[in-house]
Parts: sequence; structure tokens; C-alpha cells
Amino acid sequence: MQAYVHGYDEQENRRLQDQAGTLVDLLHSDTAYPAGSRVLEAGCGTGAQTVTLARNSPGARFVSVDVSAASLAEAKRRMDAAALANVELRQADIFALPFAPQSFDHVFVCFVLEHLPRPLEALAVLKQLLRPGGSITVIEGDHGSAYFHPDSEAARRAIQCQVELQRAAGGNALIGRQVYPLMVAAGFEGVRVSPRMVYVDSSRPERVEGFTKKTFTAMIEGVRVAAIQAGKATPEAFDEGIRALYRTAEADGVFCYTFFKGVGRR
Amino acid sequence: MQAYVHGYDEQENRRLQDQAGTLVDLLHSDTAYPAGSRVLEAGCGTGAQTVTLARNSPGARFVSVDVSAASLAEAKRRMDAAALANVELRQADIFALPFAPQSFDHVFVCFVLEHLPRPLEALAVLKQLLRPGGSITVIEGDHGSAYFHPDSEAARRAIQCQVELQRAAGGNALIGRQVYPLMVAAGFEGVRVSPRMVYVDSSRPERVEGFTKKTFTAMIEGVRVAAIQAGKATPEAFDEGIRALYRTAEADGVFCYTFFKGVGRR
Repeated sequence: MQAYVHGYDEQENRRLQDQAGTLVDLLHSDTAYPAGSRVLEAGCGTGAQTVTLARNSPGARFVSVDVSAASLAEAKRRMDAAALANVELRQADIFALPFAPQSFDHVFVCFVLEHLPRPLEALAVLKQLLRPGGSITVIEGDHGSAYFHPDSEAARRAIQCQVELQRAAGGNALIGRQVYPLMVAAGFEGVRVSPRMVYVDSSRPERVEGFTKKTFTAMIEGVRVAAIQAGKATPEAFDEGIRALYRTAEADGVFCYTFFKGVGRR
Repeated sequence: MQAYVHGYDEQENRRLQDQAGTLVDLLHSDTAYPAGSRVLEAGCGTGAQTVTLARNSPGARFVSVDVSAASLAEAKRRMDAAALANVELRQADIFALPFAPQSFDHVFVCFVLEHLPRPLEALAVLKQLLRPGGSITVIEGDHGSAYFHPDSEAARRAIQCQVELQRAAGGNALIGRQVYPLMVAAGFEGVRVSPRMVYVDSSRPERVEGFTKKTFTAMIEGVRVAAIQAGKATPEAFDEGIRALYRTAEADGVFCYTFFKGVGRR
């Protein structure tokens, strides 16, 4: 295949590749907020991203919100352990946030839209909370971006179980590829999406361990009981798929996955 | 999903992202050979890559080989039009190359292994022609890396037609993900593979036109007659798939594809 495609230079990706040392860097190193700015992190969960965010922007003030009290309790422990003083944690639903319109300079949403039945409405809600000219950053994965060697129908079916269970719960595990159209449809300006591909082969043993096994395969393995109970796979078929995913972590294996990061302005 | 993956900094990708202006840059900008070095391009086809290669390394001498006389005639026209004096074109089969062992400083293979029934043997043959310490560069696409929005079963089936036809012809349209294990199995040292992802949304109209439509979809469209004759799709089903691929080129569409570039040493 040959083609000339002009304009292939993304400042985000350049900065990114210059700085990326870990997956956290790959996703977050190009996100930093000015001192004094007020940032809403919508859907902080247990605060895994919050620590990185708040460290990378020590002068910004973060309000990190999640609907789950249990997650927030864990986030609180993380913030305390990291001795972060610029994060305020609050419990609230993303569709009923207790903030005045235009009360934030920036909004950050990571691994959240994938769980929402109405991601577009969520983005519209968040837009209202943003001051004109303020930025929004959206990061989502896409399980349809996973492919590997050796290829395996069983592995693809096990992943498909996770995709279908997430869909049945109202979410969308394939939402990464939709970050651009969703942000544009929500009315954000100057939307720019950059993919963040995680490529793993055995010359990169930390990624084999940290991504292929402990992140992706562990996540798929986590839906085993639900997938079997929902009749989406037999125990044997599911376990064969998991074995095939671990097989891609061997010396001749390869694993690929892509995250999508979009930035836009109100 | 969260994970810490250490060692995520690739010099190839850094240089690449700094220089990439076109798909040709994305694939080739980090390939340059020293003045006086002798480079074998195995499987040059019509010379589409040769022009870029020879321009990027004006002091190197290229021997570009292809099995097809018709392709070489077209390559000759290209070399003449580009006024490139550092390229010698020769007709030969990759498994019967008329060169002495260790007679090249570097070998370059792009979009070739995907067509070969025995890609590993081809790499072993090429290794013999390389001097100890010389480099080999391998670039291949992977049609399993194609995904898009709106997603479409019909589009995926049309792509699958191409994959199956290529397989029936002895090739492998999913070989990109195997570049690393193939190069390692062929005995190359220090193999490093970097993915080159082409991400297309409507904020990048040149890529919509140049890649989604005129490169990828045009290539799939090119197997229409063969796919129908082989009974792999009805005309209606195939055409529906092609329409769905063009649909991803509209304002809210997204298209993703990844090439894999491996570099190793004898």
C-alpha cells in the first residue's frame, strides 16, 4: 500500500513521544494546567489518574468527582498517601453535578464515557460547567483496537464477552474511536484526537508484564464469571481465550492496543 | 484500565514524529544510509518506495530488485522522472538473487513479505546477502489493524475477502504484527519494531482523501471481482461493505490503520 497523506505532524504526539516513559506518561504527560486554574476531573474512580494529574499540575486546583463513595474512599487514601493538597474529592453523579455553569477552567474525563449510556449528554453537561475558552480532555480505550500474535479466535471471543457485557451494562468498550465525533457533536471547538498505541513484543518485557498480562488480559479475565453466567461463553471456551491472550505474552508474541486522547475547547 | 509500563521511549518513533509530514515520511523518514553504502531493496515493485529511499540517502548506492519485468519497467520510468542516478534496477526472484554472500551493507524490504508463502525463508536468504553488522529494515501493513467508526460488519467482511484472497495466493495480509517474531526467528540481532499508526478523522482532510479513500478503501475495492468470483461475497454484500468504508470518510467518521517497521542487524 502506498499513499501520500499530507499534514501528518501532531504536536501532541511529538511531545508525547519525547516524554513517554510509562503508560501513564503515554496518556498524561502532555496534560498540564496553569497555576491557579480550576480543573474538574469528572469520574475520578479510585483516583488512579488523579495522582498523576495533580502531580503534573501542582499549581492547579482539582475537584475530582465520582458517583461511588467506595471509590472515593480509596481515592482519599491515595491522595493522602501521595500527600497531594491540591485535590478536593466530592461525591456526585455526572448528570447532577453540584457546580455553577462556567465554574471550571478545564475539564478532564478519563475512562468514564465508556461506562455511560449517554456519553454525548455527559459531554454536553460538562461543557456547561466550562468557562468559554476552557479546555476539555477526554481519554478512552477501545477494545476493538486489540490484536495480537498468535492470532486466536478464542481470544477474540473472550474479548467480545467483555465488550458485550459492557454494552449490556449501558457502556461501550469500543468508544475510543468515537472520541472525535462525540466531542464535535457536543459542540467543542478545535477538537484534536491523538491515538496512543501500546505496542508490546518481548523486547519490551515491562510492557509484556505490565500491559499484556496485568492490564489487558487481567481485565478480560475479570469478567469470567459474568460472561459464563450470562451464557456468553462456556468455562472451557473462555479459559481457552484467556490462555491464548497469555500466549501472546511469550517470546514470539505481540500485543497491540490503542487509547484515544481528545482535546477541545468550549 | 491503568498500568505502569516502563521503557516506553523509542528513538525511532521520536525522530519519526518529529519529521512526519506524509505517510511516506511516517514510514521512511527515519531510514537513511551513509554515503558509499551498498543497499539491497528486495521487491521494489514499481519503485514507489525506491524514490523516497534513494532521495533520503543520496550518497548510498541502491540495487532494487523485483521479479516482475512490468513492474521494473514502471520503476525505470519513475527513476528517470526523478532523475535518480544512485539506483540500479535488476530483475530477479527473491529466492534466487544473483548476488554474492555478504555483498550488501543494508537490506530494505517493504510490502513484500505479505505476498510470500515463506516469509521466514526470504528473510534468511536476505540475511546471507548482508555483511555482518549490516542492517535490515522491514515494513509491512496489517489489515487486522483496520477499525473505524461507524463500525460495520459489512465493511469488516469486505476486508476479510481481501485477507482471504491474499491468503489463497500464498500471502498474509495480517503479517504486520509478525514482523518482530519473523525477524527474530530469522536470526537478526537487536530487532526493534515500531508501529506507525495512521489515524484519520475529518479534522485531517488530506488523510481522509489520501488514506481512507484512495489507499485503503481503493485497495479493498480492487478485489471486488476476485472476491465475487471466488464466492467470498455477493456483489450486494461486497458493495455494501465498500459503501460502509467510504462512510467512515464522512465528517463524523474515523479510520485507523497501522504499519509495522522493524530494524535489525546481522
